[in-house]
Amino acid sequence: MTERCRRLQRTMTASGLHACLITQNVGLYYWSGSMQSGYLLIPAEGESTYYVRRSLNRAIGESGVKTVPLGSFRAFGDTLARDYPELFADGRRPRVGADLDVLPAQTYLRLQEAAPNVELRDGSAVMRQVRSVKSASEIALIETAAKAAAAALDLALGRIREGMTELEVMTILEGEMRRYGHIGLMRMRGYNQEIMTGMVAAGEAAAEPSYFDGPAGGRGLTPAAPQSASRRPIGAGEPILLDIGCCIDGYTIDQTRTAVIGELDDELSRAYDVSERILRRVESLLRPGASPESLYAEALRLADEAGLAAHFMGFGADQVRFLGHGIGLEIDEWPVLARGFSEPLEAGVVLAIEPKFTFPGRGVVGIENTYAITADGYRTLTTSPERLYRLPFHP
Amino acid sequence: MTERCRRLQRTMTASGLHACLITQNVGLYYWSGSMQSGYLLIPAEGESTYYVRRSLNRAIGESGVKTVPLGSFRAFGDTLARDYPELFADGRRPRVGADLDVLPAQTYLRLQEAAPNVELRDGSAVMRQVRSVKSASEIALIETAAKAAAAALDLALGRIREGMTELEVMTILEGEMRRYGHIGLMRMRGYNQEIMTGMVAAGEAAAEPSYFDGPAGGRGLTPAAPQSASRRPIGAGEPILLDIGCCIDGYTIDQTRTAVIGELDDELSRAYDVSERILRRVESLLRPGASPESLYAEALRLADEAGLAAHFMGFGADQVRFLGHGIGLEIDEWPVLARGFSEPLEAGVVLAIEPKFTFPGRGVVGIENTYAITADGYRTLTTSPERLYRLPFHP
Repeated sequence: MTERCRRLQRTMTASGLHACLITQNVGLYYWSGSMQSGYLLIPAEGESTYYVRRSLNRAIGESGVKTVPLGSFRAFGDTLARDYPELFADGRRPRVGADLDVLPAQTYLRLQEAAPNVELRDGSAVMRQVRSVKSASEIALIETAAKAAAAALDLALGRIREGMTELEVMTILEGEMRRYGHIGLMRMRGYNQEIMTGMVAAGEAAAEPSYFDGPAGGRGLTPAAPQSASRRPIGAGEPILLDIGCCIDGYTIDQTRTAVIGELDDELSRAYDVSERILRRVESLLRPGASPESLYAEALRLADEAGLAAHFMGFGADQVRFLGHGIGLEIDEWPVLARGFSEPLEAGVVLAIEPKFTFPGRGVVGIENTYAITADGYRTLTTSPERLYRLPFHP
Repeated sequence: MTERCRRLQRTMTASGLHACLITQNVGLYYWSGSMQSGYLLIPAEGESTYYVRRSLNRAIGESGVKTVPLGSFRAFGDTLARDYPELFADGRRPRVGADLDVLPAQTYLRLQEAAPNVELRDGSAVMRQVRSVKSASEIALIETAAKAAAAALDLALGRIREGMTELEVMTILEGEMRRYGHIGLMRMRGYNQEIMTGMVAAGEAAAEPSYFDGPAGGRGLTPAAPQSASRRPIGAGEPILLDIGCCIDGYTIDQTRTAVIGELDDELSRAYDVSERILRRVESLLRPGASPESLYAEALRLADEAGLAAHFMGFGADQVRFLGHGIGLEIDEWPVLARGFSEPLEAGVVLAIEPKFTFPGRGVVGIENTYAITADGYRTLTTSPERLYRLPFHP
């Protein structure tokens, strides 16, 4: 854990923070090795402390940092002053960056009351920046998940029949990935976002717009679960989008393949080819130093050149404005391949890149791979063969 | 939707709020009928407005309230002043209650900047109070989910064999519930809480303490997913806790049964009997007017009388201090059967009541049913037969 803490310490110092306070389960796991409930204080200099509410015993067994009982939450400021006197030297009110992008406001306000002696700031950017660069062992875990996803995809593709529902295909994928140790969900940082094993969606149901922060949401089961697979039967000749993810030991792969029973019509087939072409072009630019926003701009340019700008990454008012996203412990990590992300890529960044085209009433086609940036380029972590999967009719 | 909005209007008025602002997906669905991303303003008097970011088209199709584009988030205060001049009459800065128990602090702070003309307050208590009383149609949906859970349990109980892993049994349950339309997760309001289809855990793995806010967490797959089913093989003679949930069309059932291959030893068997006895006693008190905390106190008393206080609802420092919880669109709804919840029960409240006993190194036994409070008592929504399930050996 130490190297991770050191990287956070360097980054917080550059941002003018005296310490970071981690409150979210995924952050706690990343910096301590344990995901129990509590607060992890990482000072800009010195040793971290994991203040645990529950289960202390389990946290002590798992954590790689100093682990102690939280004690009284209301006296948390006093606890910090006792344990970190140097932070409060000369009557200073230290600037402490917390993960305010996920911490509920109610807890934030209570924390302000419990620790009036610290100045709580938004530290989420420094945390996300540090986590965006993965170690070799993190990348290896994503590759393990990639193999499980590929095996599940193979199994599902062999079982798809005309008239099966999207949900039935999704259930095959879920069951198979669980066999490999999929934890059952793909963790997502964004508020109100939910995703378990991705989505299977075909034809018009795939093209239905959604609140989900991705290029294709899917119809879902009901307005109370308005994304991912529906109970609509899959028909021949319509694009079947298999956008699936698998999370093993905390790390998630995200990948998409398009299939069809029989043949796609010319327009959708061509759009699928454009999605592969965009992916090839972006791959050719994928290396340390490339700016995420320039990759998005290039993809937009190619989509426009192909006359498909209105269909790219969703349709019309429901388009999303990105081409891909960082992925690791969460599927909406940094950087995003979108405007505003100009920080050059560096080795260790892992990205899911997903050019897709939406045709209302007809479906979504596209492809998605997960990549690790290497010293001189990239490595593809997704192992599923890349093609439009033409499935046989089974009478 | 109108009755729900009216109940919230009455409750917010009594709490001194001029309006409520709903930001969370489940709240948006409850009060508008649609779960797209955006903000729902419900004034203490007058018509609600759903300001939608994405997908507006889908929200318009689903929502039962006035639905408009969100427009510029930064000008949200101006939008409210334009649409609700009466809220701002005489230069008043209206008190607006938002769901601060779930809204991330970062968004809360941005909302304060975007709408400096309103005083943002914590409105989560009034929202949770209104949602705690279910309509007949909500209860009917929970019953639908209960039937699916019972069918899945039957299937899984028939397939459990010595040496199968907890995860294998969990996967059978998940697959079967998905066939019935389980959305794939049990929604939970609490920060950092994750649960998909509940848990299957046996023997020592079930008794491992956990961050999870329930009496039994389970070992889980790895420290990165430290609760629910593990890959430990299930042995004969050990308690198998099947604490499962199913969410259909947004509404969730939560239930627990205990099984064993062969026989439990006398101490665990007796503890299981005490859990049933506690449930019977609590049922005898379950009616409008009963106070949630008194039900918890009575359960504690019976556990103590049986000499099992140290094992009740977890063990030692890892005990949780409640007996049950409200359930509906989320599984951690109000009221909680715990100290501090003195508001008398009323007809329509739905509760999952789950007396359980934890024996470190040996397992967890217990039972859980979901109940609806009726005009003169209660109705049990869980349909699975109540008993210690003794499963045959299969050589």
